[in-house]
Amino acid sequence: MTLEDAQQLDEADPLAFARERFQLPESLIYLDGNSLGALPAATQSRVDRLIAGEWRVDLISSWTKHDWIDAPLRIASKLAPIVGAKPNELAIADSTSVCLFKLLSAAVRARPGRRVILAQQGNFPTDTYVAQGLAEMLRLELRLVPADHIGNAIDEQTATVTLSHVDYRSGARADMRAVNDAARAAGALVVWDLSHSAGAIELRLDEAGCDLAVGCGYKYLNGGPGSPAFMFVAERLQDELRPPLQGWFGHSEPFAFEESYRPTSGISRFLTGTPSIIALAALEAGIDTFEGVAMADVEAKSRALLALFIEQVERRCGGEVSLFGPRDLEARGSHVCFAHPDGYAVIQALIARGVVGDFRAPDLMRFGFTPLYTRFEEACRAGDILADILANREWDQPRFRERKKVT
Amino acid sequence: MTLEDAQQLDEADPLAFARERFQLPESLIYLDGNSLGALPAATQSRVDRLIAGEWRVDLISSWTKHDWIDAPLRIASKLAPIVGAKPNELAIADSTSVCLFKLLSAAVRARPGRRVILAQQGNFPTDTYVAQGLAEMLRLELRLVPADHIGNAIDEQTATVTLSHVDYRSGARADMRAVNDAARAAGALVVWDLSHSAGAIELRLDEAGCDLAVGCGYKYLNGGPGSPAFMFVAERLQDELRPPLQGWFGHSEPFAFEESYRPTSGISRFLTGTPSIIALAALEAGIDTFEGVAMADVEAKSRALLALFIEQVERRCGGEVSLFGPRDLEARGSHVCFAHPDGYAVIQALIARGVVGDFRAPDLMRFGFTPLYTRFEEACRAGDILADILANREWDQPRFRERKKVT
Repeated sequence: MTLEDAQQLDEADPLAFARERFQLPESLIYLDGNSLGALPAATQSRVDRLIAGEWRVDLISSWTKHDWIDAPLRIASKLAPIVGAKPNELAIADSTSVCLFKLLSAAVRARPGRRVILAQQGNFPTDTYVAQGLAEMLRLELRLVPADHIGNAIDEQTATVTLSHVDYRSGARADMRAVNDAARAAGALVVWDLSHSAGAIELRLDEAGCDLAVGCGYKYLNGGPGSPAFMFVAERLQDELRPPLQGWFGHSEPFAFEESYRPTSGISRFLTGTPSIIALAALEAGIDTFEGVAMADVEAKSRALLALFIEQVERRCGGEVSLFGPRDLEARGSHVCFAHPDGYAVIQALIARGVVGDFRAPDLMRFGFTPLYTRFEEACRAGDILADILANREWDQPRFRERKKVT
Repeated sequence: MTLEDAQQLDEADPLAFARERFQLPESLIYLDGNSLGALPAATQSRVDRLIAGEWRVDLISSWTKHDWIDAPLRIASKLAPIVGAKPNELAIADSTSVCLFKLLSAAVRARPGRRVILAQQGNFPTDTYVAQGLAEMLRLELRLVPADHIGNAIDEQTATVTLSHVDYRSGARADMRAVNDAARAAGALVVWDLSHSAGAIELRLDEAGCDLAVGCGYKYLNGGPGSPAFMFVAERLQDELRPPLQGWFGHSEPFAFEESYRPTSGISRFLTGTPSIIALAALEAGIDTFEGVAMADVEAKSRALLALFIEQVERRCGGEVSLFGPRDLEARGSHVCFAHPDGYAVIQALIARGVVGDFRAPDLMRFGFTPLYTRFEEACRAGDILADILANREWDQPRFRERKKVT
């Protein structure tokens, strides 16, 4: 694969138009949209309009006049084609951690008598912390097993299963259908974390028989740093489940100011407090970058970008780095990790050269490919620069070895 | 009190300068800052800088480069003089409802064996819903008593007490010191809701012996619609308490990606998921409107505004409306309700005349006075316009009687 070959792929790319929907800094190869998505071109004006046009002018009346009150569901419904769900199965709220707590606790409550939360070993840490906190509070057992053993570990004691669809390090994609089927057969519910898949690959939550899911707004959905998260609750479960973390936005008549909680019907009962309307406006601009985009194209481009990058890295870096996670691209999400004993320093050297990936302990260099804006040419050049850095031991400098806090 | 008298009060107002810190629509008398604070003049440029200057340009590296990672505590520390706490006793996070859930559940867990959550009857509904949800989940008893009986109702079974400092309808201010003392004597913890007091009156949380508190960012703190909330945890309790709703932002080493949760020491352990950095930027601009402002001046002006408005309304509207809540202004927060059988329609007629208050069931017309931007002249004119509307039965029209959703 030469740079010219890659440029030809860009020219033939059916998603090339989408890059214009983002404001990417010149001269940066940004391969970290899996950690923080790039800024959509429309975000700033959308947020400005909200602040200067709505909040400033119409103040409190904006809740009805500009329909702020329905924003969490209205914006969520735009996710329906992105994740393969019905528009009324989605809500935007809180953070991913808080959403996970809400859905896990609702699921556990719906299976009284079952004492086990089954979760993926090595899942993104906050997911595990949330499950640990809930299990401790309710004196349940949290059982951690490797992702590929989850299906077999589900039994009659299992109240709820939680795992990531795409692993934040290995990039491995779990078999959604198989886990859902195993859980259903045993009478357990599954809460998926879609943080590393929503917006990056094709999802068909309903078709795969999903019960519940949460996902991140600030990765492939481009909602901005710390964007609110989203929840998916299958229509068939909405009126059966009820999160113990309940608040007025989930009440049947929030503005009747009743003393007793009466959950509304449908997805709204999973809302809790007043959502940040400013953060929602930014997230809406992020989700709108998918307008008119076919998720099959997104997944195909993701796979082609990964194929190119992996081939380039393995060919040019030889045995210095090793692919982590599945080689089969169909069994992957849209990021890839290569292990290197000095991975941390190598990533810093790459950043100094304008290639932004990130590091995940203990030794993983992680590169994310965002089909809406990553170019084949960039994937190709990133591989070349990595090869250069390794060949010249450019990373072997104190300024690159010194550890800083990273996200 | 004539309009000229009111204008003289404005001229002598030591807080008059603060009005310039807001962008208030011309020709509107906005008496609903207790529901949604007005737009600070600095918000838009602050948010723009965050979006176009930080997120766009520095992307993921902004977490360290622009210190996003410390934003929740850095911004919270600016609340210290506003609420009378130490800078390290405050954190910004989530929504008020979620923060309340976290502190209540942490408090209950710290008092094992005690089975009662004691809460204020008629508290702002979401507070009650949160307590109900928690009590139900943990099979505790939620005991609701009128706010002024809370102190006497605390006993050896009480794990936690929760109430609003200033009641969202009556405006009645609870005796913080007395409730805290009664709780401490019985070994219970108290979680205050400061939504209707923070930024409106003088608070001395530490001096009053407070344990825990939550508060709203979008009322008198001007953080924008649905702004993140804040938590207060007394330093002496920080390492003893631990919310079951735990996530990576509360971990001792969030970026070490450890499998087990190890809460950090101090206030950070009350953080959960990734916060919205855009929403935080807006909240910071809101909190910054208090720069150089003495809270004693804020409280004095609040009281003077209330005195003027109540006098004006009672003198001009005669027996048509009745004051709801305490007459003693020292026993009040910064808003006042008047009851009128057609209060809903009257409020709509007022809004049509450019005076924005809000309605609270069953019959309360509520008016909030924000010392940083409300003028005495406005309080006076609002009273006059209300009197006009009542005298002419201007409210008695179908367009004012028709109920819409309100917040």
